[in-house]
Amino acid sequence: MKADLRPVPDSTPAVGMPRPSDRASIRRDNLGVVLRLLRDGGPRSRVRIAADTGLPKPTITGLVGELVALGLASEGTVERDGSIGRPGLSVHLDGRDVCGVGAEISADYVGVLAMTLRGETVFEQRVPVAVAAAEVGSVLDLLAGLITRCLADIAGRGVRPAGITLAVPGVVNTAAGRVDYAANLGWRDVDVLAAVRRRLNPNAPALRLENDAKLAAVAEYLAINDAAVHDLLYVTGETGIGGGIISGGQLLRGAAGFAGEIGHMPLDPERRPCACGRLGCWETMVGLSALLRLAADPDDPVHNPTVDVEQRLAELKARALAGDERTLAAFDRVAADLGLGIGLLADVLNPRAVILGGYFTHVGELMLDRIRSVVRERVMAPDAGGCRVEVSRLGFSAPALGGAHSALERVYQDPAARP
Amino acid sequence: MKADLRPVPDSTPAVGMPRPSDRASIRRDNLGVVLRLLRDGGPRSRVRIAADTGLPKPTITGLVGELVALGLASEGTVERDGSIGRPGLSVHLDGRDVCGVGAEISADYVGVLAMTLRGETVFEQRVPVAVAAAEVGSVLDLLAGLITRCLADIAGRGVRPAGITLAVPGVVNTAAGRVDYAANLGWRDVDVLAAVRRRLNPNAPALRLENDAKLAAVAEYLAINDAAVHDLLYVTGETGIGGGIISGGQLLRGAAGFAGEIGHMPLDPERRPCACGRLGCWETMVGLSALLRLAADPDDPVHNPTVDVEQRLAELKARALAGDERTLAAFDRVAADLGLGIGLLADVLNPRAVILGGYFTHVGELMLDRIRSVVRERVMAPDAGGCRVEVSRLGFSAPALGGAHSALERVYQDPAARP
Repeated sequence: MKADLRPVPDSTPAVGMPRPSDRASIRRDNLGVVLRLLRDGGPRSRVRIAADTGLPKPTITGLVGELVALGLASEGTVERDGSIGRPGLSVHLDGRDVCGVGAEISADYVGVLAMTLRGETVFEQRVPVAVAAAEVGSVLDLLAGLITRCLADIAGRGVRPAGITLAVPGVVNTAAGRVDYAANLGWRDVDVLAAVRRRLNPNAPALRLENDAKLAAVAEYLAINDAAVHDLLYVTGETGIGGGIISGGQLLRGAAGFAGEIGHMPLDPERRPCACGRLGCWETMVGLSALLRLAADPDDPVHNPTVDVEQRLAELKARALAGDERTLAAFDRVAADLGLGIGLLADVLNPRAVILGGYFTHVGELMLDRIRSVVRERVMAPDAGGCRVEVSRLGFSAPALGGAHSALERVYQDPAARP
Repeated sequence: MKADLRPVPDSTPAVGMPRPSDRASIRRDNLGVVLRLLRDGGPRSRVRIAADTGLPKPTITGLVGELVALGLASEGTVERDGSIGRPGLSVHLDGRDVCGVGAEISADYVGVLAMTLRGETVFEQRVPVAVAAAEVGSVLDLLAGLITRCLADIAGRGVRPAGITLAVPGVVNTAAGRVDYAANLGWRDVDVLAAVRRRLNPNAPALRLENDAKLAAVAEYLAINDAAVHDLLYVTGETGIGGGIISGGQLLRGAAGFAGEIGHMPLDPERRPCACGRLGCWETMVGLSALLRLAADPDDPVHNPTVDVEQRLAELKARALAGDERTLAAFDRVAADLGLGIGLLADVLNPRAVILGGYFTHVGELMLDRIRSVVRERVMAPDAGGCRVEVSRLGFSAPALGGAHSALERVYQDPAARP
């Protein structure tokens, strides 16, 4: 039994403190270590797993055997470790019959996605809904209906869910399962988790609530899967601006899970009013509304809320590529202000990568040069502290994918207890 | 042998990933766990150590025996665990003959301090020097002289150093042992570590370089020693503003060790020029120069650089307590701007505590009410995300104390290898 020195959620250790371990916990932890190695490093021989983990070869043989018996790993094609030596059986991540379920409530849609341990998306559905204009109860009905359909669908294929994680934009109290404040949904103090649970079959797997940008940051971090990147800032642009921080390979949640609230940094000298009631917040400079305001007069069709956002962004992109001066100036302005805030956050957090998600997925490429030059100019550390700025490769799926990863986390923590 | 999957400094694990462990590493880790428990939790019986760590009683007996044999723990006064049961021998942290050495180069002085494992300061000396006006070589001569005197002094008492950590304000490359940029020292690209090492006896213990505010944050975190505080932001005010972040009980260093650079957030709509060459940086609003500028005309004696800073701050404090309107207005302005930046950082990091060090140690109490009210007003999460703002209890000793703690860290990581 591995025990924490303090009760959750205050079980965080002292500086550099390892948790106590005993023999009973080693095997569980090492199963997880090997499983993560297969996920992050790809297929490899037992010999190489032993070398990569520093564990003895007989231990690895035992661990791999148990993972194979659990259906979480498989042995397959022959692999040569380098150019010399005997070829060995390659071990790869499996778990085709175990999945995590990620659900999302965004301002414009609700969606549910199921992803197996080995990374296949086996279910994905999204239903457009203007959440702020709808009744909370009807939104939750819709979401619970999607989750129920997802669970039935995967059960029909023999895939078992490890858990469900629900992504919501705004200030989320994970422990209480409550959305404290979600400006873009128009929600305040909504007990989302209990309300969704009531709408599901009592046998539904464990349900968890988390901020959408935090989950998206986890998904982006795992998608990048670069041995040089363990400090990452995810910035998502929608009506508002959300953030998720990975620090030293861990999601930074802060003392009460509220970390990553980056949209309301008071950076605008013009002090425009923000939806939050404050003045000059960063999201009034770089949110979607700011781009649209700068790019087009109020009667321009790109402002039409009944037209899909991706379509309106495509129109703006086309104008920019055609050389339209106002559009180009708008992108330049937003890019410079994005660089200003990203530079500030790079000074505070020193991330290796900044990933731009949400609406930036569609038009970020047009702004990258300008963003990067402002970041280089603003950051105090040499060469911007080694920080690179990139556009998300996951787009609007990132929060739900992160939810699925988050739900699968319990399999990595205790592989033998897989559903 | 516990092995990392990736070479240092990129050995950070994937999200939530424990490091692989084997039987040989358990004892070392568990020795450290017990040692930290005694440091952070105070003296306690073996029975209670077993309960606190979740390890079996016989294991604890073995671990405590080894720590006592190493001189790192002692058994002492009788303690009763609660009101019932047999009284048991209490185990407490010892290590009176092992110390960490913390050295500091600040804008105004160089200093060296040695602290034993059980927390006694056994050596402390500080020499005033206006570093920016002095030759780099002569500053390092002075520092190396102090370190040499410290090592001779503690050797004479039979105390052995686990290491030396040097605190420097500014952008520090720890891996290279280089100060990249320290505006307030007037240093750029100085290979401090090699230069100090050349000036020391070849038998001197391992030397490490770190940013002063990061080390101060570690010292403040360990001094607070509150089971509810594992996320902390340290803000130090001198000519510049420095920051150190503890996140989940760990020092947040970022991808290349540059995290915590909080002095240059572009928050001032008046865009005053900063020493860094940019406009409107936070330190132009809340650094010591800003307070002095707001509080007094240029010919006022509080601006006299030949008078000790603490004395000038005492004069300002006296004026404020006497009700001088200009002084009160200056404190109010600086407090409001401190609250603005702290609120931003509390949104990003969600710390449980913000600790004000440096010059704020002397006048922070006068500003706390105002700072707290602005933070409450600015932070998006309810009740400022549970964040409390306090004045440092360690004052100007914090960086060197943090250096000593940092040097002692190797004892916690492998108690059996103590010097």
